[in-house]
Amino acid sequence: PTKAKSRRQRWSVKPSEMSNNTLNPIRAIVDGMKLTPNPDKPMIALSIGDPTVFGNLPTDDSVLQAMKDAIDSQKYNGYAPSVGYQKSRQAVANFYSCTEAPLEAEDVILTSGCSQAIDLAISVLCNPGDNILVPCPGFSLYKTLAVSMGIEVKLYNLLPEKSWEVDLQHLESLIDERTSCMIVTNPSNPCGSVFSKEHLQKILKVASKHCLPILADEIYSDMVFPGVDSPSMATLSSDVPILSCGGLAKRWLVPGWRMGWILIHDRNDVFGTEIRRGLVKLTQRILGACSIVQGALESILNNTPQSFYQETISFLKSNSELCFNELSIVPGLTPVMPSGAMYLMVGIDMDHFPDFKNDVDFTEKLVTEQSVFCLPASAFEYPNYFRVVVTVPEELMIEACGRITEFCQRHYRPRSRDSNDLDQ
Amino acid sequence: PTKAKSRRQRWSVKPSEMSNNTLNPIRAIVDGMKLTPNPDKPMIALSIGDPTVFGNLPTDDSVLQAMKDAIDSQKYNGYAPSVGYQKSRQAVANFYSCTEAPLEAEDVILTSGCSQAIDLAISVLCNPGDNILVPCPGFSLYKTLAVSMGIEVKLYNLLPEKSWEVDLQHLESLIDERTSCMIVTNPSNPCGSVFSKEHLQKILKVASKHCLPILADEIYSDMVFPGVDSPSMATLSSDVPILSCGGLAKRWLVPGWRMGWILIHDRNDVFGTEIRRGLVKLTQRILGACSIVQGALESILNNTPQSFYQETISFLKSNSELCFNELSIVPGLTPVMPSGAMYLMVGIDMDHFPDFKNDVDFTEKLVTEQSVFCLPASAFEYPNYFRVVVTVPEELMIEACGRITEFCQRHYRPRSRDSNDLDQ
Ligand SMILES: Cc1ncc(COP(=O)(O)O)c(C=O)c1O
Ligand SMILES: Cc1ncc(COP(=O)(O)O)c(C=O)c1O
Repeated sequence: PTKAKSRRQRWSVKPSEMSNNTLNPIRAIVDGMKLTPNPDKPMIALSIGDPTVFGNLPTDDSVLQAMKDAIDSQKYNGYAPSVGYQKSRQAVANFYSCTEAPLEAEDVILTSGCSQAIDLAISVLCNPGDNILVPCPGFSLYKTLAVSMGIEVKLYNLLPEKSWEVDLQHLESLIDERTSCMIVTNPSNPCGSVFSKEHLQKILKVASKHCLPILADEIYSDMVFPGVDSPSMATLSSDVPILSCGGLAKRWLVPGWRMGWILIHDRNDVFGTEIRRGLVKLTQRILGACSIVQGALESILNNTPQSFYQETISFLKSNSELCFNELSIVPGLTPVMPSGAMYLMVGIDMDHFPDFKNDVDFTEKLVTEQSVFCLPASAFEYPNYFRVVVTVPEELMIEACGRITEFCQRHYRPRSRDSNDLDQ
Repeated sequence: PTKAKSRRQRWSVKPSEMSNNTLNPIRAIVDGMKLTPNPDKPMIALSIGDPTVFGNLPTDDSVLQAMKDAIDSQKYNGYAPSVGYQKSRQAVANFYSCTEAPLEAEDVILTSGCSQAIDLAISVLCNPGDNILVPCPGFSLYKTLAVSMGIEVKLYNLLPEKSWEVDLQHLESLIDERTSCMIVTNPSNPCGSVFSKEHLQKILKVASKHCLPILADEIYSDMVFPGVDSPSMATLSSDVPILSCGGLAKRWLVPGWRMGWILIHDRNDVFGTEIRRGLVKLTQRILGACSIVQGALESILNNTPQSFYQETISFLKSNSELCFNELSIVPGLTPVMPSGAMYLMVGIDMDHFPDFKNDVDFTEKLVTEQSVFCLPASAFEYPNYFRVVVTVPEELMIEACGRITEFCQRHYRPRSRDSNDLDQ
């Protein structure tokens, strides 16, 4: 019989490099923390970017009804096209189209959550050995995906003292011949910041100057506090090609449903048919969103009442203000007031907290003593801050802020002149 | 200001190599065909592997009810763990666990369709430069995924004359030091074949001898005709580690819902914690299945009546027999009777059809003349066959077979002695 080049005499199956290189910084940090709450105080987790966990922010009834109608219709059990049903793509196009940035159904690709939208966008734009520009602090998935594909991540700084605007000089200084895309998250996770029109234009100018396409992560688009202007990037540029990634997760409060999309903005015809075709090909690997959610999408987008969005926003704003006001007067903490999304970053003046090595240690002990868990911003590559998720019920937010205050008061040490002198 | 190493002076954005290398053979072939039906005959598509397209095979009411209950509960709007809800994983484990191949919740990873299950399994087991063994004819996604990741595909032959059993010598001859996994599809798309216990044991012996893990694509598991025995691979081996990929798509007739899973069988502890951890890490890239479907899963698995499965099977069997019997008596065609799944392969004796260059040409003209579309098996790397999907309503199957017969009778040329002589 056949003489095979026997592969192995003994079993040895090792995970691939790609899986070894799939690193989740949040997990890496949180799994390494000793999170033992104080048994006398019930745990309050301000750490999870999931607005549904406390039950106080249900989605709208019309959204649920749309799903049940889609099920009852029995029209959405089969395979949808890999880019999504035409009708559903049209509905997204209609929802986001505007004079400055028109959209057709062909410009919309439906995906399994915004995560897959980001995955596809990076996958089509970047080759191994390329690098991408990523905000710091920023959502960790960009790095997780890029590094697993052999793409280098270059972090550009956001400036807390300027409400987390981009350090444009730093951004520009990072660009080189292997830079294949710039990611802009607006509104921001973890900052809750919203860029002004003028600032977005400056970012676009850098992209335009260096002919760099933009991946605009706009999953929190329209989740901005009243009075804040928040144009989408695509409305502000006609020459920079933009893949805008979004989805139902946050604004419609259904992150588990895994409904996302890419909006292809390319009025300058830079992407041309090639990038579009590339995206279509990539969607054929595993297909996208659940057909039932796709079937419900048109109705979800068209029939969710404005009051639903407004109520969510005003809740997020009032909780943000509450948290900001409470923590502003805590010595050693510097909260940065957000303008949207559902997060708030708080600076820790570590010099005043000699009991703790760093933000991870600080937040770990906050659990031990006060049973309040906030994500240390090291998880976003931004030490000495922690992130507060502002979707918790108001009374829990108040209670949590009280406990954080108590914790800080207990551990705060005023900086003495003497020790400063010694340092010199 | 900053002097950047300007990347480009002009716009030039090209799709990545990965997207260029994401090739879909079915699309490549079908998009190149001129499919213009005969205007006098309504089109009958026997080409689409989606059992829902004709409306004659609805899913069970209990399945729809489970979905609506999950929606109404409002418990499944948030993020599920990246590997799926524990409760849903447990339900899958219970459903497939048996004495010979026990499963715990920890052995189950929920995915966005069986496609993502296959993607994750290949991703965790293989590195670029490796090769995998793939059945021929076989489901094209394996190659699409592998090639896009820089993994080579080695096709091992199935033998039509032996009801599509594996050519074991050929299989073994392909194994080398870079072979990292063997894919076995059972029951088979496109063949509809089901391997006997003895044959599966022989395949496992090859894997065992060469210490090769198996990716068992068992999406059609339990979709076998009455009387056919169809053990899952994992029940037949305690030493070969097996990732069994499955899902709701086919047996529950809801492919659009994108609910799949990986069952990790590793009684020999070859995968150990490493491969399991690698899989978990990979699930964190884009997360998996829609939370609503996950929420409904336990009820779907436990409450779907046996009669539902049986009715589907007996319909598929009777349609297969009908098609097989009709086409068996057509000169020039050699249908192979299936034992499960929802497909039937038909050999074309091209020597008898000099009007056509190949199976693609043959099936294209079948559309032009008879408005019947069957997928040319070149799409499965297996020329001179075509695949019939047997999920169409019976009367359409009869009509289609009649038209295929007419088509063949019109184009059949008996092989003449003379021309044979001339060839020598
Ligand atoms: C900035 C940002 N982008 C993308 C996502 C992922 O969205 P999805 O759950 O739709 O995949 C998140 C989720 O937290 C996010 O914060
Ligand atoms: C053999 C085989 N495996 C996997 C799949 C994909 O299944 P899913 O739709 O759940 O991704 C199919 C679909 O046709 C198939 O035939």
